[in-house]
Amino acid sequence: MDSDDGSRELGRPECLRLLATAPIGRIVHTRQALPAVVPVEFGVDGDGAVLLRIAAASELARALDGVVVAFEADAVDAAARSGWSVLVTGRAAVVTDRAEAARLERTAPASPVPSREEVFVRIEPELVSGRELVGGRTRYGLHASA
Amino acid sequence: MDSDDGSRELGRPECLRLLATAPIGRIVHTRQALPAVVPVEFGVDGDGAVLLRIAAASELARALDGVVVAFEADAVDAAARSGWSVLVTGRAAVVTDRAEAARLERTAPASPVPSREEVFVRIEPELVSGRELVGGRTRYGLHASA
Repeated sequence: MDSDDGSRELGRPECLRLLATAPIGRIVHTRQALPAVVPVEFGVDGDGAVLLRIAAASELARALDGVVVAFEADAVDAAARSGWSVLVTGRAAVVTDRAEAARLERTAPASPVPSREEVFVRIEPELVSGRELVGGRTRYGLHASA
Repeated sequence: MDSDDGSRELGRPECLRLLATAPIGRIVHTRQALPAVVPVEFGVDGDGAVLLRIAAASELARALDGVVVAFEADAVDAAARSGWSVLVTGRAAVVTDRAEAARLERTAPASPVPSREEVFVRIEPELVSGRELVGGRTRYGLHASA
């Protein structure tokens, strides 16, 4: 549905297509009862799940495993007032199944400096939403008002 | 404090300096009990408050007024594995004081297409944190593990 502020809702296929084009995204989770936002490189699995590859011993791996998180990516040209933003919300989990991890190892780009043990984290694409920004009307407001 | 994953904590002055260089940031708030992330243009007030200028009648203005939100901006070069990320957490409020709104009107860039009533929203910089990414070691993990 179009809103009157110059943004347009995107369907799930379009969201996942755009998501795969972004070099980085942001994990939004809760840390000590406060919001935390962590930029990460990522991949998109065939079913739309967001794939992270992080240090097994990291606090982030512990913080994400088994909890519902949001993952956001966007590409916004502030000067042109155009772009898009996609949000995936779902349960994150460290991939513990060996066959699954091996599959991801084959399909995901290799770690260039595999200096320590890493794990894959999958964020299930339970909710996928996005907006295309097609020319905002306000100086600071590349946003959806709808 | 440096962590062992190639990121470094930034002090508040450095965070605010970097924040002011970003063309867009992202408001993280809660919408219908789910996380919402909205890319917006923004300014930084003299005291470090994040300034938004949005449509007075927007759902976003209603959603933000009086609630604690997070605001994130970053600049990450995935290829070089470098960049920074800053998070401001604090109470957001629509500026209703006329003198204050007039001051912001003078100091903030003018709205290029002031087609309808707008308001300023200030996000108080109650908590300001940030990390410099100085070369991550993992393919997908430009993140802080500390």
